[in-house]
Amino acid sequence: MSNVVRRSRRGYHRGMPGNVQSIERAAAILRLLAGGQGRLGVVEIARSLGLPKGTAHGILRTLQHVRFVEQDKASGKYHLGAALRHLDTSYLDANELRSRAINWADPLAARSGEAVRVGALLDGEVLVVHHVFRPDDTLQTLDMGTVLPPHACALGKVLLAFDAAAEAQLLRGELQPYTHRTIVDRRALARALAELREAGWGVDVEEMTVGQAGVAAPIRGHGGLVVGAIGITGTVERICDSKGRPKPKLVTYVGDAARAVSRDLGGARW
Amino acid sequence: MSNVVRRSRRGYHRGMPGNVQSIERAAAILRLLAGGQGRLGVVEIARSLGLPKGTAHGILRTLQHVRFVEQDKASGKYHLGAALRHLDTSYLDANELRSRAINWADPLAARSGEAVRVGALLDGEVLVVHHVFRPDDTLQTLDMGTVLPPHACALGKVLLAFDAAAEAQLLRGELQPYTHRTIVDRRALARALAELREAGWGVDVEEMTVGQAGVAAPIRGHGGLVVGAIGITGTVERICDSKGRPKPKLVTYVGDAARAVSRDLGGARW
Repeated sequence: MSNVVRRSRRGYHRGMPGNVQSIERAAAILRLLAGGQGRLGVVEIARSLGLPKGTAHGILRTLQHVRFVEQDKASGKYHLGAALRHLDTSYLDANELRSRAINWADPLAARSGEAVRVGALLDGEVLVVHHVFRPDDTLQTLDMGTVLPPHACALGKVLLAFDAAAEAQLLRGELQPYTHRTIVDRRALARALAELREAGWGVDVEEMTVGQAGVAAPIRGHGGLVVGAIGITGTVERICDSKGRPKPKLVTYVGDAARAVSRDLGGARW
Repeated sequence: MSNVVRRSRRGYHRGMPGNVQSIERAAAILRLLAGGQGRLGVVEIARSLGLPKGTAHGILRTLQHVRFVEQDKASGKYHLGAALRHLDTSYLDANELRSRAINWADPLAARSGEAVRVGALLDGEVLVVHHVFRPDDTLQTLDMGTVLPPHACALGKVLLAFDAAAEAQLLRGELQPYTHRTIVDRRALARALAELREAGWGVDVEEMTVGQAGVAAPIRGHGGLVVGAIGITGTVERICDSKGRPKPKLVTYVGDAARAVSRDLGGARW
């Protein structure tokens, strides 16, 4: 506390940009709602905090978006969202991610000519929440609901790269090999994930299945939080160029699809 | 969810002012920290959310101010604050409120010539956390640690007026009379509190003790949340003018002191 006060005496608070103020106000609203057994209307909240009604409403709307606050439909009053008590579970469940990604997975399969998978981390593994077959007549197996090893596929590496806690946890354990190209060295994996963050997309070449390669990119939700990944898989010859690197055209298609889903989720800045 | 997405498709999110974005980012940081058993550094957090380090740091600093996040001194890493799990208890305990108010309570007593009390709501009652004697030689009793009925004193009415939940709870029960002037009618009390919110300060004239009057104003913490009240009490003749209204000079002194404490707590906008 003394630290905060010392700062504010130097005019620190008054010199702060607006974004900080809005977070403080959001926290004050959450505390106000937590204090009451009942539910509060926007007018009551605005009055209590000495805010204009429009300002309070804007903050409440955002808190609703991130599910920290819920609004009672009948009364219009607000109360704390269950998500606030379960911060560690994704605010976006698999069905919702799927229902958002579905509109962009089909076009990605059509453009790339490859199979598309959408995944999210679940207990340290990649849960496939959506799967579109490669648009040809070959026999394919539906992967939905299966789990993949995160360090051995493009989808998983993307999810790890943007979840520092999941990455740290994985790097504490043994990395199981699936092919002779699976990354099993921890430092090598950490390096690969750092490169992936820089690039904004990930790749695996025969790291999970011999002869198969994949490209994936992150799906971001509110505030930039990575809530899933979308990617394509296919034979190495189709996915990669003669130098063994993914074809730039395919990387663009995957990135476009990831950004489109992110935009739908309110998480894109493009 | 469908609602959020529909909005974002209309470009709603991209058209939103920055304050909303910062709340979304703050929520994303909280979720990121909640997901990890470990603690995360600012660089890891910035990377995961695709934010510049400076932006992530500014949000973390604010989350620290409101105590939703704590920083490990040794490692510099961040983790969720205990306050987030106990939103319904004040983030400012009585000792902290007292230690901030103490610098301004003495000057208020000197300027006004009256006794000063600082109070906060505790289980629906006003806990006196600080008391400065009236600066004269009369015998006075130290009130610190005592509790006062919120509807019958200026301090309490201020605290009720800016805490919609506490007000609603009190208005559900019986209002006990302390003198013949105590407000015991619920509608009359609700009206008085509405007027108090408009005015920004509160008064009681012989509502708790015959012959005594009080004037009080709200102390605001981060985000405008009212965390306490500061006020003076004295004989009706000294506090009020010939029309029975508090002397404007005294109201100004009380308001000045309340703003000064609020400023120290980072909650003032003046």
